[in-house]
Amino acid sequence: RINGERLWDSLMEMAKIGATEKGGVCRLALTDLDRESRDLFVKWCKEAGCSVEVDAIGNIFARRPGRNNELPAILTGSHLDSQPTGGKFDGAYGVLAGLEVIRSLNDAGYETEHPVEIVAWTNEEGSRFAPAMLGSGAYTGALDPEWCLARTDLEGKSVAEELQRIGYAGDKPLGGRPVAACFEAHIEQGPVLEAEEKPIGVVTGGQGQRWYELTFIGQEAHAGPTPMARRKDALVGAAEAVQLVNQIGFDFQPDACATCGMMQVSPNSRNVIPGHVWVTIDMRHPVDDRLSGMDAALRAGVEEIAKRRNLEVQLDAIWHFPATPFDSDCVAAVRDGASALGYAHRDIVSGAGHDAINMAGVAPTGMIFVPCEDGISHNEIENATPEDLTAGANVLLQAMLRSDQK
Amino acid sequence: RINGERLWDSLMEMAKIGATEKGGVCRLALTDLDRESRDLFVKWCKEAGCSVEVDAIGNIFARRPGRNNELPAILTGSHLDSQPTGGKFDGAYGVLAGLEVIRSLNDAGYETEHPVEIVAWTNEEGSRFAPAMLGSGAYTGALDPEWCLARTDLEGKSVAEELQRIGYAGDKPLGGRPVAACFEAHIEQGPVLEAEEKPIGVVTGGQGQRWYELTFIGQEAHAGPTPMARRKDALVGAAEAVQLVNQIGFDFQPDACATCGMMQVSPNSRNVIPGHVWVTIDMRHPVDDRLSGMDAALRAGVEEIAKRRNLEVQLDAIWHFPATPFDSDCVAAVRDGASALGYAHRDIVSGAGHDAINMAGVAPTGMIFVPCEDGISHNEIENATPEDLTAGANVLLQAMLRSDQK
Ligand SMILES: NC(=O)NCCC(=O)O
Ligand SMILES: NC(=O)NCCC(=O)O
Repeated sequence: RINGERLWDSLMEMAKIGATEKGGVCRLALTDLDRESRDLFVKWCKEAGCSVEVDAIGNIFARRPGRNNELPAILTGSHLDSQPTGGKFDGAYGVLAGLEVIRSLNDAGYETEHPVEIVAWTNEEGSRFAPAMLGSGAYTGALDPEWCLARTDLEGKSVAEELQRIGYAGDKPLGGRPVAACFEAHIEQGPVLEAEEKPIGVVTGGQGQRWYELTFIGQEAHAGPTPMARRKDALVGAAEAVQLVNQIGFDFQPDACATCGMMQVSPNSRNVIPGHVWVTIDMRHPVDDRLSGMDAALRAGVEEIAKRRNLEVQLDAIWHFPATPFDSDCVAAVRDGASALGYAHRDIVSGAGHDAINMAGVAPTGMIFVPCEDGISHNEIENATPEDLTAGANVLLQAMLRSDQK
Repeated sequence: RINGERLWDSLMEMAKIGATEKGGVCRLALTDLDRESRDLFVKWCKEAGCSVEVDAIGNIFARRPGRNNELPAILTGSHLDSQPTGGKFDGAYGVLAGLEVIRSLNDAGYETEHPVEIVAWTNEEGSRFAPAMLGSGAYTGALDPEWCLARTDLEGKSVAEELQRIGYAGDKPLGGRPVAACFEAHIEQGPVLEAEEKPIGVVTGGQGQRWYELTFIGQEAHAGPTPMARRKDALVGAAEAVQLVNQIGFDFQPDACATCGMMQVSPNSRNVIPGHVWVTIDMRHPVDDRLSGMDAALRAGVEEIAKRRNLEVQLDAIWHFPATPFDSDCVAAVRDGASALGYAHRDIVSGAGHDAINMAGVAPTGMIFVPCEDGISHNEIENATPEDLTAGANVLLQAMLRSDQK
């Protein structure tokens, strides 16, 4: 069993980096605060006797040798970056649960057969740099590494230059580390486990996801003397698109989600009819055909809006991954681990994207969820109990040991 | 008659300051570029023999003495600041037409009875600092001067500190300059004069105007695992409000205008349900009762949206002025001037707010409009013909001389 108190203390220590007033964290990818959290993680890993390597997109791998170091590793981990108004468990929990597993193995003097590795992936949130799961995407080949390095934030700074700046442009190549099994522990970020009072979610896979950037171009004109009937108001078009996206989320129930998260209005002046509006769209469904249906509804809907409102429109699909089932052996290892420890559990599909979903493309992979308060995440008030976090890390240890002994 | 070529040359010279690629200007109030345009105007005024004074909110007054300097001045002018993607005639035309009148009086060696003054008002656009017509509002007492000086831009910089920084926090008190008559020449910024092929609009008054700031507060949550039915999406609420405002514009025809110009989404991340959205609203109507009806429809509508969508809402009415008729003698002076010069003209109500509308509260005031291409303003492609601009300045000269001789 792992040491729940030590895990909690490390989580609270990490949460100081970028701490916000409302109890959350703001630790955007590749900022100075992200560097601080990376430095602390590397320090802790070295103190736990691990060797540390960094790859070309800043993913950090810490390794505890096994009895047979020719064997592929048992890998675990998650991410340290956060949303602008994020919670202290999203990502950090999976990284530090991995560290706690290694610390517990050290305490017990337990030698695994395989080497054990913890990874902290770069820019999982997709907030500063789109898309999400960028580091694992570049690592696994789900995304083109050159494209990933060239992605820019709203100020035009690229992933490559920010990696250099914070000193995490590593020398290890992307991909190719042999992995026997990969597990990621994470808070659920939704309401299911809490509602059913089950501390463990056995994640069977992730839903499909599509990201878009939508631009409407109308004509800037004066808000006073320009008659309503003559206007080409890009914001009115974008507002209709926001409602369209929301409606698609409801139309494709059960299980669909559809969200507009960002909007930039130009010229953004009170007495100017907006000429240019840019909106991001995030659509998800666990069934690929249904997600395709949502995609078709979106395309038809924005064309209709643009035509009716006499606007130019551009819809760019910038990211897509299909619904991804996890490896049946890894899922079983999680389920059996939870059962053996006597934790109530249920199978669950992940609503969020996770680095594990990218890893599922190159290695046997599974995930463990624990509940979070009110199902709220991507919010400074995100919360989870020490008991549930301890349970999740215990299941992680069990699942890793089961994979080690296979 | 004025010298149309000299007027055009001065307009083109001024338009170099903050010139944009698409042929417009970006010369936001109290920026370095605004200072440059002020410096050029002051230099030209001094070259034309005027004395120059600056008041506490940065309004610049250039004075050409008359035969009897105890008499109140004949005042003309407009503003030099622009929208972020503004045109080169909006405001600058009225200031430089005033300068051209003085230059023409000089050329003719003509001595007016009254002193003649040109004013360049501070922050007319209301784009960097809300509300619009801030300098004339503070000057005339339509707005509280202390409140005006404390207004901040999106970065939190105040009018007072920016005035200091650019060296235009003047030593003259606000208000109290004796004015016999005030005229402002301006492009129409709407389509009426062009459609009727009339070079001169005799402005009979300005429509009423209300500005609001609307905030919806929901709950930030993850765009993936948060079920549609559990969401409190502030952007979906704001999108409905944008459509509500647009609908109010149509419902209160004829003559109503209603616009959302700015929107700020928070936390503005692709995979976070927006928790906080701020929108600006601009509503106008030439009939005060109708504008009150629009106000009531807005208040009821946003409450209904907030209630139905389970959002907190705050609607702040930050600025209001009623429909304002101009002085009948000043209107007649413009009409008679146009007739005397043989220019086709029509009476027109201003759709835009203008400093002249504030001045109408403290002095007999009138305005002269000239057509602009396709009725487009607050856009870099804003355009007007040298012929129409010349006609407007000729009418300005005539109206000022008529008032001088009364
Ligand atoms: N786990 C998590 O919050 N991931 C962000 C990627 C996404 O699901 O949008
Ligand atoms: N003339 C002009 O563009 N004024 C700005 C004030 C307003 O009408 O919103």
